[in-house]
Amino acid sequence: MAIMAAFNSPEIEVLGLTSMYGNVPTAMATRNALTLCQLAGRPEVPVVEGAHKSLRGAAKERIADFVHGSDGFGNTNPQLAEGDPAPGSAAEFIVRMARQHPGEVVVLALAALTNVALALHIDPQLPQTLGRLVVLGGAFTCNGNVNPAAEANIFGDPDAANVVFGRMPNTYVVGLDVTHRCVLTAAEIEGMEGRGRHGSFLRSITQFYLDYHRRVYGMEGVYVHDATALAAVVRPELFEWHAGAVLVVTDGPAKGHTIRDEGHKQWVGVNDWQGLPPVKVALGVRSAELTEWVLDRMTR
Amino acid sequence: MAIMAAFNSPEIEVLGLTSMYGNVPTAMATRNALTLCQLAGRPEVPVVEGAHKSLRGAAKERIADFVHGSDGFGNTNPQLAEGDPAPGSAAEFIVRMARQHPGEVVVLALAALTNVALALHIDPQLPQTLGRLVVLGGAFTCNGNVNPAAEANIFGDPDAANVVFGRMPNTYVVGLDVTHRCVLTAAEIEGMEGRGRHGSFLRSITQFYLDYHRRVYGMEGVYVHDATALAAVVRPELFEWHAGAVLVVTDGPAKGHTIRDEGHKQWVGVNDWQGLPPVKVALGVRSAELTEWVLDRMTR
Repeated sequence: MAIMAAFNSPEIEVLGLTSMYGNVPTAMATRNALTLCQLAGRPEVPVVEGAHKSLRGAAKERIADFVHGSDGFGNTNPQLAEGDPAPGSAAEFIVRMARQHPGEVVVLALAALTNVALALHIDPQLPQTLGRLVVLGGAFTCNGNVNPAAEANIFGDPDAANVVFGRMPNTYVVGLDVTHRCVLTAAEIEGMEGRGRHGSFLRSITQFYLDYHRRVYGMEGVYVHDATALAAVVRPELFEWHAGAVLVVTDGPAKGHTIRDEGHKQWVGVNDWQGLPPVKVALGVRSAELTEWVLDRMTR
Repeated sequence: MAIMAAFNSPEIEVLGLTSMYGNVPTAMATRNALTLCQLAGRPEVPVVEGAHKSLRGAAKERIADFVHGSDGFGNTNPQLAEGDPAPGSAAEFIVRMARQHPGEVVVLALAALTNVALALHIDPQLPQTLGRLVVLGGAFTCNGNVNPAAEANIFGDPDAANVVFGRMPNTYVVGLDVTHRCVLTAAEIEGMEGRGRHGSFLRSITQFYLDYHRRVYGMEGVYVHDATALAAVVRPELFEWHAGAVLVVTDGPAKGHTIRDEGHKQWVGVNDWQGLPPVKVALGVRSAELTEWVLDRMTR
């Protein structure tokens, strides 16, 4: 949804797509990204493969294939593109693009933050060259979606999230606090059929995702997480941004939980939030306007 | 405040006070509790000494003496009572009282939950004999007061909190979510002077606490944490209670952080909240009525 809406957005020049595990393994995400570029008639857009493991590395990273099906396209099994990804790593690509267009590049991070953390590791100057980072992730005032503590993208690599939130001041975080207020109803999904270049495709791949929402949330609709984060790139004024230090729990049952210093208190003694840069966290959203914008961009 | 208001409440028969470290060490808390019984003209009320260490034990437990002064009475240095505490441990006292009055005893836990957890350890049937547990602690939808993650009472013994929240279904939790909405203004504190048996004493010991709030919160008033929890015993209808499993982070920078399953999702896979009993967490409060009630009870 977010990628097709980005291709349909005149304000955005898509410099490239970088892949990441999460709903499917990284290699499949790369193949799917190539397929989306082809479907969008944008085969020249580079796709660069991202990390296969979290920073710390796990024997088996979590792949939530029950959200978008084992093919990542809601088990619609579309014809996949056959081209090759661009050479190099996602981290190097991010670093290179930011250097080529200083202050202009926006990274829209829609999965675990491993690629961005690696980019910061290979180029500590990235905060000075990158224009902005918009992160889909976290749950600050509500439960997560992996478990009560953790949202899936941050859970996917909490160490990477701490690297990013600790070093990248110009970061905008779009978590479940707002994406859970941005719902496409089953009727709206149905209404995408035949509208614009990608309406039918998007309607089709969203059926599995809708079933998932019916089953686990009892909803007749879906959360438009990723496209909400895209809206934060193009329409940041639709959100209420609150600046504050963000720390992520990296171990134990609350692994992946995001905690923000609300700034109401002069802390007595030391704590781990002190010295972290203020990142902007979205805690409010004009959701009706936002979902209207998303629907429009998906069905142009 | 809470203890004097309890002594002034006709609905409450104070069976005893149990002490606990937190703002002062446990031995001083015992001495201070004896002093409050004497000041209240209730020297027959037993005071039983509680734990000196958290369940896990620490070389040095945190004593937040910057909140109520090194004497726990806002450095007013009152004449202390000279009597002795009752024999036995706080945990045994809780178990015994609950057995003697099955279903009728309310434990109002205003500090770390060590004594209650020990009571559960020595009598696993306590949930069947104890009427109700009201806990002052936690921060579910807002920052803590030790650091952004943790509220002080839960931080004082997070393992004990997990024992309690894991085994005691009839628990009501009053956290910063509501106590930070229950403020006594500097003017209201001043107005206690000369009112009722304890108004002048309470006004006097609250000056240090008010200075603390001015310094760390920039407030002309104080949070009435403990008396708000007392109100939850006598006037539970002033609160909005939300039932759900509560887990406490026990390690790392978020130690003491409380996370509640809001119950909006059928979780996919296992998590540590599953199987925990639903405890009642206060997320709303009619704060004007509450502070009026508290002021009345403190100044009778």
